[in-house]
Formats: sequence, structure tokens, C-alpha cells
Amino acid sequence: MRLARLGPAGEETPVVVTADGVRSIAAVSADIDGPFLASGGVHRVAEALAAGDLPLVPDADGMRVGAPIARPGAIVGIGMNYAAHAAESGSAPPEVPVMFLKAPNTVTGPADPLVLPRGGRKTDYEVELGVVIGRTASYLDSPAAALACIGGYVLADDLSERAFQLELSAGQWSKGKCAPGFTPLGPWLVTPDEVDAQHLGLRSFVNGEPRQDSSTADQLFDVAQLVHHLSQFMTLDPGDLVLTGTPEGVALSGRFPYLEPGDVVEVEIDGLGRQRQECLAWEAAS
Amino acid sequence: MRLARLGPAGEETPVVVTADGVRSIAAVSADIDGPFLASGGVHRVAEALAAGDLPLVPDADGMRVGAPIARPGAIVGIGMNYAAHAAESGSAPPEVPVMFLKAPNTVTGPADPLVLPRGGRKTDYEVELGVVIGRTASYLDSPAAALACIGGYVLADDLSERAFQLELSAGQWSKGKCAPGFTPLGPWLVTPDEVDAQHLGLRSFVNGEPRQDSSTADQLFDVAQLVHHLSQFMTLDPGDLVLTGTPEGVALSGRFPYLEPGDVVEVEIDGLGRQRQECLAWEAAS
Repeated sequence: MRLARLGPAGEETPVVVTADGVRSIAAVSADIDGPFLASGGVHRVAEALAAGDLPLVPDADGMRVGAPIARPGAIVGIGMNYAAHAAESGSAPPEVPVMFLKAPNTVTGPADPLVLPRGGRKTDYEVELGVVIGRTASYLDSPAAALACIGGYVLADDLSERAFQLELSAGQWSKGKCAPGFTPLGPWLVTPDEVDAQHLGLRSFVNGEPRQDSSTADQLFDVAQLVHHLSQFMTLDPGDLVLTGTPEGVALSGRFPYLEPGDVVEVEIDGLGRQRQECLAWEAAS
Repeated sequence: MRLARLGPAGEETPVVVTADGVRSIAAVSADIDGPFLASGGVHRVAEALAAGDLPLVPDADGMRVGAPIARPGAIVGIGMNYAAHAAESGSAPPEVPVMFLKAPNTVTGPADPLVLPRGGRKTDYEVELGVVIGRTASYLDSPAAALACIGGYVLADDLSERAFQLELSAGQWSKGKCAPGFTPLGPWLVTPDEVDAQHLGLRSFVNGEPRQDSSTADQLFDVAQLVHHLSQFMTLDPGDLVLTGTPEGVALSGRFPYLEPGDVVEVEIDGLGRQRQECLAWEAAS
């Protein structure tokens, strides 16, 4: 099942995207969030869909696509989870997952303008597989147990301002990960039954030129290992988001330029859709 | 004005603490959160108090004290903001504020049990002045402008599991900052008119023995500088929390032992109240 949220920022309405059109699920749930996922909301949507109870959204094509989940309680990023990306960043592959946090108010939609932060000089793209938590994950006993805590998957761009992250940070990355709009999500939240999470191609493009082109099969720590590991150090709540790391091909490698106003950034993951964002200078957007 | 939240975890009711008793502000606001602070809630409480419209809470003394603010959208921690603490941690004083994030679900009350995380060996206390954002702070022009964005101050303990933070983290601190219950707040949110933020004594004790004993006058970056600086890298929303760093005297220094089950941790800041938590082994609490 593909779930989405359509409408102006902050006023999105939840929908299900089906072969015969986009249907409102507002009668089932006011939003796609932690309580929806934890209380069996996906099952209720499936029942209502089968019963023919969900009305088509006639003007769906003309509506803004929002992030497919409401603002998470926490966004956990994972660093250096593809060996080739660790190498291009000048690091050895980590022995344990490297965890950092992003501010939850960075979430935005997959076609919103990408505003380059004021004072930034090195804004970089990072296509990532996002995991949305569907059930509380705390001190899980095994990676297998982690899979039962996953509510769905989402395409994400973990945007990063490298000057803030690495030069002005004294080593703590979050300063370069939290600019407004730095976590575009979607277009869809896809339920786990439709996702083979460790065999997904993921790619990024700038102005149509390929940048990243890898597979989640190359992750050093797979999704189950990541959620299991994180649960030893924090409680992941329903609706929280885990970004599972980016593969090689980012601008930080030195092989490609950082983003400039006017650039068009596109990211995609097999089965999870595609994002397209046009870069704006902060001055032009404010 | 001293605001607080009393009642079982997740069901706290907002109150104002006055010289003649604890009064409910439920008729003014359902909670003490971002919308309350941003919409002039403090002013409305003052008016209702002056008008005699706020009823006494008769059983306040017997109620659990919750965190004095609802769960924040983001918790921003500042590292190494007192020179002597940087030195005891083996670091030079930073040239810019060091920013990291804590998961918002770590917030708990000031007298709740302190559950030592499973697998932890080096859980440490950190008394800190907490700043609660009252008005959106984004790309502020000056430290002076930052002061207008502050909704109040709160006593915080930025609990830290040093093995998770420094040994299992590949350098990113958040892994040791996010265990359940790792951000006890309160007892009160105190409005800025009653707080001389850069002249506050702050202290911690373990089993009655002094550990930390400093003043916010010793901060490398003061509150206004911190909020101004952070606003260049993220948007701080009303209700967000900034923890402004801890002074010397933590266990990480090697001068004191890490926390053990049965230990009693107390922290206090002049005018912001006192916390008292008893440490429990994870096994005993689960």
C-alpha cells in the first residue's frame, strides 16, 4: 500500500494511492502518524478500500505533495553505512552504526523548493532509504524482532551543509543536518509487504546528470540491524524516522560540485518514488 | 512566574506555583507547550491570576511533578560550554558552540526514578540551565534579538552514558544522550523576568556529596549567543529546549565514580528549583 499526504504545508490530508486513483483516507484517520501506524491504521485502510468506502480525490494531480508522514518525534540519521561512501568521505568503514539526530522540523515535501541555507557554501544531496517506525522499539532482543517494528519505508534526501557539519561543528554533525527543509520525504509511505528493503536501487541526479547509483544490498548494517542497534540506546516511537545512510557519489567526495541556486536535484528509490527539487538561494526564498 | 505540570506521566495538568499555593491554569491552556508560549499564554495566566480566576489545586503536594513543559519538538544540547569542564573532558575550549541533539522522548520529571540504561557502565550527571524557546528563532540578526525568543528557563540534568557516547559512537555523541528518561526537567518553568540567566549558581550532588558547583557566569557562550548561533543552522520553534552545557565536576573527569543503582542524584539552580532522583538498575525497573 502506498500512503501519501496532499495539500498545503501544515494542512495535508491523508490519502492512499491505488491503481485506479488517489483516495482519501480522512474517514479512517486524520493523519499518517505514530498513532495511526501503531493502532493498525494500515489494516483499517485496507478494509475500507476493499469495502469501497474511500472516495476518490478528484483534484489530486493538482495538489502539493507533502511528506507522507506527519512530523516525527525523532529523526535518526546513520552515517557511513555504505563502504564506498565512507571511503569517499575519508573514513574507514565504521565498526558499529554511527548515529546522529536531525531536528524533526526539517521534514518537507518531495517537490518543495530546496532553499540553500543562509551562509552555506557546501550544500550536498544524500539519497537514503527511510524507515518509519510502526511499533515501539526498545531494547529489542534481535534484528529479527526489529522487523516487526517497521511501519513502512520512505524515500528521503538527507540534505547536509558540509561547511556547517564539518568545519563549524567541532565534530558533531547535527549542525549541518538541520537547516529548514533539509529532510524532504516521499512521495509515498510504502508498507513493508511491498518492499524488499535490502535489494533496492537508489539514485540521485543533479541537473539530470547521475550522481549516486547504488543498492541497499551494499549497506554495511541492514535495516533490521540498525533498528535493533538503535533500540539499545534510545526508545524509537511509532512515527519516528530512521535514515539508513547514503551511498557514494555525494559532492563531499570532491568529484562533483556542491549545489547552487537553479540546480535541480532528483532522488529515487525503486518502488518508493522520485523527488524533484529546484534549489533556491536563501535570499530569493525569504 | 513559576509554571509546572502535575500528575501521572502523560496526563499532567498545568499549574502556576504562587506564594499562596498551587493553582490550576487548565482553564487558560490545556498544556504548557509551544503554542501556549507563542500565543501570550504567560500573560493570560497573569491576568487570570490577578482576576482571582485560578482555583487552588488542593492535593498538589501529593501529586507527581512532571516536566514543566510538554515534549519539545527538539532538544538541542551544547557541549563544552564551561572552560573547566572542557579541560576535565580532555578538550580545549571550543571556538564555536558545539551542538548536538537529544531525542525529545527523553524528557521526564524531576523526581522520577533514574533508570540506568541496559548495558551502560558509565552513566553520568550534568546539571544544566535549560532555555525554553517562546518565539520562533530563525537566522536571528544578533544575540540581543535572541533574548526576545526565550519563553523561560528550566533546571535540567543532561544525563549521559559515556560508554555509549564516546566508546560505541564513532565520535557522534547522541548515542549516549538518548536513553529513556535522560532529560529530567523542572520542577518549574520560570519566566525570563524572574531569571538573571548569567548569574545563576548551579550544583549537583550524589548521595549528598557535592559534585558540580559553578555559575552560569562562567559559560563560554552565554544564552543569547547560543540561541543566536543555533538560529543560523536550524529553526528553533516555540516549545523547543536548549541545554546550555554543564560545568566541571562530572564523573567523566575521573575524580568521581559513575552512577550506581541506589545512588541519589540531586541537581539545583538558583531560583529554578531542585531535582532528586534515585538510580535504579534497568533490570529492577523493567
